[in-house]
Amino acid sequence: MKLYLNEVSNAPLRVRLALALKGIAVEEIRVDLERGGGEQHSSAFGAINPQHMLPVLVDGEHVVRQSLAIIEYLEELKPRPALLPPDRAGRTRVRSLALMIACDGQPLLNLRVRRYLADGLGLPAAQADRWFRHWMGQSLAEYEAVLARDGMSGRFSHGDAPTLADVCLVPQVLMAERFGVPTSGYAQVMRAFEACMALPEIRSVVDRARALDCAPEALR
Amino acid sequence: MKLYLNEVSNAPLRVRLALALKGIAVEEIRVDLERGGGEQHSSAFGAINPQHMLPVLVDGEHVVRQSLAIIEYLEELKPRPALLPPDRAGRTRVRSLALMIACDGQPLLNLRVRRYLADGLGLPAAQADRWFRHWMGQSLAEYEAVLARDGMSGRFSHGDAPTLADVCLVPQVLMAERFGVPTSGYAQVMRAFEACMALPEIRSVVDRARALDCAPEALR
Repeated sequence: MKLYLNEVSNAPLRVRLALALKGIAVEEIRVDLERGGGEQHSSAFGAINPQHMLPVLVDGEHVVRQSLAIIEYLEELKPRPALLPPDRAGRTRVRSLALMIACDGQPLLNLRVRRYLADGLGLPAAQADRWFRHWMGQSLAEYEAVLARDGMSGRFSHGDAPTLADVCLVPQVLMAERFGVPTSGYAQVMRAFEACMALPEIRSVVDRARALDCAPEALR
Repeated sequence: MKLYLNEVSNAPLRVRLALALKGIAVEEIRVDLERGGGEQHSSAFGAINPQHMLPVLVDGEHVVRQSLAIIEYLEELKPRPALLPPDRAGRTRVRSLALMIACDGQPLLNLRVRRYLADGLGLPAAQADRWFRHWMGQSLAEYEAVLARDGMSGRFSHGDAPTLADVCLVPQVLMAERFGVPTSGYAQVMRAFEACMALPEIRSVVDRARALDCAPEALR
C-alpha cells in the first residue's frame, strides 16, 4: 500500500496514527504543499485525487480518499486491534467524536482555508489569526464538553483503548500546539491526548511529525 | 426515535433523506435557529448536544450526534434498503464521497460560519458572499471531478441506487440553489441529483424543505 501524505498535515496524520496502531506498514509518498504553489495541485496528483487533497491511500487497484474513509477501510481490512468499539453504541459515539473534529473542527483551519482567507479575501494576518483561534478553541471546547458529559470516556476519548476518535483528536491538539492556541483549559481532551502520547506507536509518529515541523508554520 | 432538526438545514436534511429511503418514521422536533439568537444555543438543548448543533437522533437511551454517525447507526439498525454498498471498494468510495461534502464542503458554508464571518470578523456582505460562492463552487467541482473520473458512478453518485453519498449531495445542491450559486456546469452532479429527485421518497422530503424555505435565506 502507498500513502500520499504531507508529514505535518492534520488529516494524513490521522491515517498514519491508525496505521501505526494497527501495525500496518505502507510506502509513504510525500506531497510538498509549498513547492511550486503546492504539488497537490499538479495534474499528476490530480489523476490520483481529483480533489487535490491529502491523504490518499492506494491499495492495488483501490484508490481511497478522505482520511476517515481510509481508516474505515483499514478497519475492515485488518479489524484487530480495533479502532471502532464492538458495540453499536460505542461505535456510534466514536464515529460522532471523530466527525466533530473531521467535519466541524479541522476543515475550517486547514491550509487551503487559511490561504483563501489571506489571498482570496485579503484578510490581514490579525483577522486570519482570530479566525484560527476562534474555531480551534470552539473545536476543543466542544470535544471537551462531550467527553465531560456522557460518562462513556475512560482513559482515552472512549473507554480504555485508543479509537478512531483519538486518531482525530491527537492531530487537532498538535495543530493547536503548533499555532500557539492554549490547550490547558481542556482537561478531558488533554487527558485523552496524554493517554495517546503514552503509547509508543503514537509517540513515535508524533515525534517524527514534530521534528519535521521545527519552524512554526505561518498562518499564511 | 426522536430527531432534533431544523427543516431547512443541510446536515439534518441528510438524516431525513436517509430515514425516508429506509422507511423509518421518527418524531421530529424542530429547533429554531433564529428565535432568541438560536434555540440550539439554549442550555436545554446543550444537555442533549453539548456541541449545540443539529441534527441529533435520540433512540431510547442512545443520543446520536453528527449526521454521518446517525446514518451509519441507522444503517446498522435497519440494513435494508442499504445506503452503503455490499462490497468494500464501493462502501469505501461512497463514504469518501459523503465525507468530501460533509468535511470539506458544507462546514465552510453553514450558518455558524456565515455568522462568524459577518459578526465575528465584521466582513462586509460582498466578502461573505464571495466566500460562500468560492467554497460552494469548489465543493461541487470536486465532487464532479471524482464522479467523472473513476468510472464507478451510475445513475446515482455510486451505481444505480441511492447511497449515503447522495443523501449528502442532495442538500448541498439545494443549498447552492437557495443561495443562487449556478449548478448547470456540473453535469455528473446534476445527473445524480435528478436521479434522486425522481424518487418519491426523496422528492417529498425536498418539496417540504423547499416549501418551508420560501424566503431566500440572507447570507447573514
